[in-house]
Amino acid sequence: MKDIIIHEVGMRDGLQPEKEIIVPLETKIEWCKKLIEANIDILQVGSFVHPVKVPQMAATDDIFKYFTENKDIKRNTLLSCLVLNEKGMERGMKAGAEMFCMGVSASDTHSRKNTGMSTEEALGRIIAMAQECMKCGYPVQVSVQSAFGCGFEGKIPYDRVYNLIKKYLEAGIKQISLADTAGHAYPEQVTEMLSTIRSFAPEVAITCHFHNTYGLGMANCYAALQAGIKNFETAFGGMGGCPFTKVAAGNVCTEDFVYYLQRCGRREDIDNSKILDTTFMAEKFFNRKLPGYLYKTINKETCCN
Amino acid sequence: MKDIIIHEVGMRDGLQPEKEIIVPLETKIEWCKKLIEANIDILQVGSFVHPVKVPQMAATDDIFKYFTENKDIKRNTLLSCLVLNEKGMERGMKAGAEMFCMGVSASDTHSRKNTGMSTEEALGRIIAMAQECMKCGYPVQVSVQSAFGCGFEGKIPYDRVYNLIKKYLEAGIKQISLADTAGHAYPEQVTEMLSTIRSFAPEVAITCHFHNTYGLGMANCYAALQAGIKNFETAFGGMGGCPFTKVAAGNVCTEDFVYYLQRCGRREDIDNSKILDTTFMAEKFFNRKLPGYLYKTINKETCCN
Repeated sequence: MKDIIIHEVGMRDGLQPEKEIIVPLETKIEWCKKLIEANIDILQVGSFVHPVKVPQMAATDDIFKYFTENKDIKRNTLLSCLVLNEKGMERGMKAGAEMFCMGVSASDTHSRKNTGMSTEEALGRIIAMAQECMKCGYPVQVSVQSAFGCGFEGKIPYDRVYNLIKKYLEAGIKQISLADTAGHAYPEQVTEMLSTIRSFAPEVAITCHFHNTYGLGMANCYAALQAGIKNFETAFGGMGGCPFTKVAAGNVCTEDFVYYLQRCGRREDIDNSKILDTTFMAEKFFNRKLPGYLYKTINKETCCN
Repeated sequence: MKDIIIHEVGMRDGLQPEKEIIVPLETKIEWCKKLIEANIDILQVGSFVHPVKVPQMAATDDIFKYFTENKDIKRNTLLSCLVLNEKGMERGMKAGAEMFCMGVSASDTHSRKNTGMSTEEALGRIIAMAQECMKCGYPVQVSVQSAFGCGFEGKIPYDRVYNLIKKYLEAGIKQISLADTAGHAYPEQVTEMLSTIRSFAPEVAITCHFHNTYGLGMANCYAALQAGIKNFETAFGGMGGCPFTKVAAGNVCTEDFVYYLQRCGRREDIDNSKILDTTFMAEKFFNRKLPGYLYKTINKETCCN
């Protein structure tokens, strides 16, 4: 039944660009609970980043602690976090994170703006962190950000992406996410890159993470599905966008993606109405329309009835 | 160069659900001129429908007359119209329409709500009209509306769609549009239906027309492109939606689709900045955000510089 694995990143990638209103801890926990009730496979609760740099993520420790302490909350959902450095990793382990995500950007400019380090410098640190997490027994996913193009540099040579993947594989990392941070990917490119990766790394588990900057997120998901990709990162309401890239729009919308999978008879164990509930709550909280399509359509259907 | 043909339907399908504010004739002409400057292949100027039923379309005769009278306006763009009945067809011929579009719905419920006739009743009249237009030497495109599902009836048996196509072909019609009026199509369905149609009608020219009700418009376009479809109907700004269906969201956005084609090195003869100009004008006119992605991203890029 779980032929496709969904990693919900709305609580992290979806919320981190929201700088004006900080979502209170209780509200975040409520949204997380809804997503857990929906039977989402992996829920990225937040990132461990300096609270001054991204105030929206300051509550991440407390959300993990809540779920660590409340063991009676039934869930099939693994709780993941994003970490940017060793300090964050230590916080994550202490708070009760169950899966660690981290990454480097294929774009030197994006890498420097995001981390203050070149891709090469960041790579060494991230690999060491990933190995430390694996040694401690945690599931680990390492990403290549700006894998399909960069808001600052434009085209990124495919070989830069392939070389990063090879370095990860040499370091013993099995799960690698390709993040279209700036939303530059298009379906033909997705097909070509995934085919090349498959040729030199047939066993690697690739996760795809697309943004809708140019409206191609869902088409890219379809191309990735056709290429046999099983892991996707999406955000409820289609929220999100990296605060450290030049132009980025929301993630592929989780409930739209689930709707599509269910139209194909896939992942019918996911309760999409619970994801929609989260989106309705977020729309109300932020008091503005979110990018997702399904929740607007459902609203109209209700009005028409 | 013109491996893909774009039929811009924003002036008709895009504007017809706008009931509150009627776009004045001069504004419509200005938008049409921009789309012509963009080098769009076919521009659907409007529909010939009773002005009381769809007041937004009342100016259609005058737009055609403007371009008929102003022969000095350079254009590579064919000006098409949608007609619903014989009266509309006569108005179109008199006003100077250069291509006639008409259709029936594969859904009986949608057909009755839209035309007051069953699919079968509507079919006879539409075929007679199409043949009359062809006899007069006009290019004709006939559509199957609700071809991928219906807001009222839900699933539409594929055979209903195939049988309509067969009837059209028997009547000598060469160009057939499959319209996803309610936005129910998903990529796997598009692939399957187009493959079946190809098997019984290898020579037919199919046009695809998708709506974003569930966010799958662009993914469906990609599936159609993969199936070898060359004709697409899209609307600037992603505007639109049929006023006679239960729930419908905007069309696939023309400038987003052109951006994607140009990322693949296709249709570089289209000046996408002129389509964007039209969208910016429409956004300003209606004083609200439109669904398209590219124009919002371009706006942000300008702000960041």
